[in-house]
Amino acid sequence: MTDRTDPSRRRFLTGALAAGGAVAATKVAAQAGDPAITDISQQPWSQYLGPGVDAAPYGVPSPHEAHVVRRNVEWLTADTVSSINFTPLHELDGIITPNGLCFERHHGGVAEVDPGMYRLMINGLVDTPLVFTLEDLMRFPRENHAYFLECAANTGMEWRGAQLNGCQFTHGMIHNVMYTGIPLRILLEQAGVKTNGKWILPEGADAAGMTRSIPMEKALDDCLVAFKMNGEALRPEQGYPVRLVVPGWEGNMWVKWLRRIEVGDEPWHHREETSKYTDLLENGQARRFTWEMDAKSVITNPSPQAPLTHGPGPTVLTGVAWSGRGTIPRVDVTIDGGKNWHMARMSGPSFTKSMHRFYFEFEWDGSPLLLQSRAHDSTGYVQPTKDMLREIRGENSIYHNNGIQTWYVNEQGVAENVEIS
Amino acid sequence: MTDRTDPSRRRFLTGALAAGGAVAATKVAAQAGDPAITDISQQPWSQYLGPGVDAAPYGVPSPHEAHVVRRNVEWLTADTVSSINFTPLHELDGIITPNGLCFERHHGGVAEVDPGMYRLMINGLVDTPLVFTLEDLMRFPRENHAYFLECAANTGMEWRGAQLNGCQFTHGMIHNVMYTGIPLRILLEQAGVKTNGKWILPEGADAAGMTRSIPMEKALDDCLVAFKMNGEALRPEQGYPVRLVVPGWEGNMWVKWLRRIEVGDEPWHHREETSKYTDLLENGQARRFTWEMDAKSVITNPSPQAPLTHGPGPTVLTGVAWSGRGTIPRVDVTIDGGKNWHMARMSGPSFTKSMHRFYFEFEWDGSPLLLQSRAHDSTGYVQPTKDMLREIRGENSIYHNNGIQTWYVNEQGVAENVEIS
Repeated sequence: MTDRTDPSRRRFLTGALAAGGAVAATKVAAQAGDPAITDISQQPWSQYLGPGVDAAPYGVPSPHEAHVVRRNVEWLTADTVSSINFTPLHELDGIITPNGLCFERHHGGVAEVDPGMYRLMINGLVDTPLVFTLEDLMRFPRENHAYFLECAANTGMEWRGAQLNGCQFTHGMIHNVMYTGIPLRILLEQAGVKTNGKWILPEGADAAGMTRSIPMEKALDDCLVAFKMNGEALRPEQGYPVRLVVPGWEGNMWVKWLRRIEVGDEPWHHREETSKYTDLLENGQARRFTWEMDAKSVITNPSPQAPLTHGPGPTVLTGVAWSGRGTIPRVDVTIDGGKNWHMARMSGPSFTKSMHRFYFEFEWDGSPLLLQSRAHDSTGYVQPTKDMLREIRGENSIYHNNGIQTWYVNEQGVAENVEIS
Repeated sequence: MTDRTDPSRRRFLTGALAAGGAVAATKVAAQAGDPAITDISQQPWSQYLGPGVDAAPYGVPSPHEAHVVRRNVEWLTADTVSSINFTPLHELDGIITPNGLCFERHHGGVAEVDPGMYRLMINGLVDTPLVFTLEDLMRFPRENHAYFLECAANTGMEWRGAQLNGCQFTHGMIHNVMYTGIPLRILLEQAGVKTNGKWILPEGADAAGMTRSIPMEKALDDCLVAFKMNGEALRPEQGYPVRLVVPGWEGNMWVKWLRRIEVGDEPWHHREETSKYTDLLENGQARRFTWEMDAKSVITNPSPQAPLTHGPGPTVLTGVAWSGRGTIPRVDVTIDGGKNWHMARMSGPSFTKSMHRFYFEFEWDGSPLLLQSRAHDSTGYVQPTKDMLREIRGENSIYHNNGIQTWYVNEQGVAENVEIS
């Protein structure tokens, strides 16, 4: 599923798509004589008392869902401590990513921080350098917000053509979580930012000592010093006990195991904002400080890991969309490679800088499909094609690929990652 | 913590409360010389590479959070398969309950259903009896909504006085989850409800064969046939693979492992809506069909399981509120047993029939506190005192106690469940 194939083989000529037969409005199969419901012996679970309330004080998924896990791509990186795994987007619905399935990206593995020994320092260009324990932080006002976190390199392998066969691998470096945290503004006000304090440098307590420069304007706007995700404590791999939340901006800036925030008068140009996380252009120049994640969408079902197994008839297509610049009021969907576009149905909460869920219900006639989705964000920006991005930015970068994704679905319902020429 | 004590001992005379000293605006402790941040040897996790992305394909909480679990109360029931455990509300924040911590209530243990063998039948007063496989259900339009689920018996032990020492035990038969499901209306329309079809009887596939009568009006309004919670498949103890969602109504109606929906012309008066889940009044009469959960709130921090450990100064009080009849636009909080009420700060999404989060920040002067919260819902209804409820309904029932909860906090910050006279 994660084979590396020659991208050129995956370029799909729209001329090859069959001209779609007449729509056969097949009814969803359903009849009342099915012994699986009428014969009680086929429902063994109704014959015995099941496990009780002491079985799992902290619950886990059904054994039948054992395939629903984060996965990495072995050939992508040399080791796992400085690597990435991917959220199984094709197994999820709605807008919340459960904590156990939020993708991970580490630069030096997971820091296993003792919360009793946890400290957060604010220093640099401040009136009073401060150190907070975890208990200190709990004494400041908190807020609750759902935000997506997307790695800048999400969809990065697709810059040079369709490569990874599954939305988990092409688009799974994203999760969407409801955070509880303290506005960073409040903590900076406690320390007192000097008038020449124009930037902050959050620093992680991990072995990589992850750092990024963030302009003061963003720090004072909507950043959170977060300690809960989806109601409970942050998970270790997501920065337990405290991480920075930088809404709408690329994931590596959301420093995990947050240990220190230094205030300065200019950006630091540290490793992870120079040699990494800058976009190399065609002419060899690097775009720096490409913080915002542009509007993007992907169809999660059907997709290569989630084929259409039910045959022709009523079919639910679904996917997710997001923008680092606001909400997603609209997503368009095509099932014929762009000949016809349909407005998708949005369902679920619409929060700024949070994932949105869309659906498109149609009658599948059993002929091949070329599926695409196109997000519009609240600023009016429309998700571009991959070719439009390549024309401007070349193919040297692995970052910030928000191009339209195409899945080809054959007569058997099997889906494949392709591009359209 | 779950000792059963003489409730009368817990009745608190407000006269006994010390008359609160002058507010000492202590600053949150924070100084820059703390060796825990300046001495790197005290941060061992920054000295070694931590676990990598293959460590846990499905992630779990930090070992430091091992105390954050569902708990039962041993003396409450004789066995665990027909029992209940409680959500650790005092350990959570925001409005989402993570799936692993959603309280459980079983009538015959957890049905371990094979999703491949799963069937849902709709029969009775319908034009066409239907049977759906799980794959069939996936072909109908879905919606996403966050709803609270509260057991009718939540806070039931408190009818006769303050008993259980912790909000996990007094109020923890509730969770709040984002569901993905099919409007029940759509499935009933497929079967075609006959004109005399006025009630439905959802039936579970568990050993208890759980059933409840629900009026057709509610079935066609906002009920969902749900298969995802917080983005992923339902957990086994929450009805995997399919449960009914009955927004705002008592939890036992949200039939788990949903196997069958029968349409009828009158209620069935089955066991769980006669001998159980009816409210016995003072005069021996039973209130039947008390479906809606009235507006309610509880302070989760501080509370008996979550004392104030930081001493006087800035203090964050927080809690949750909900109503089966709409949203919660307002929560009032008192720290002096009702002498003064303050409007709490609401933070986080406000959805109908969903949990809301409130905060109240204050300077604790170190003297004893009597904490209460009072929810107002969008219909104008105001949460009553427990004594007001007892006056009307007596003390024979264990159901539908939405009275105001009181915590007494002493000078050491230790909290106790009390009532005020």
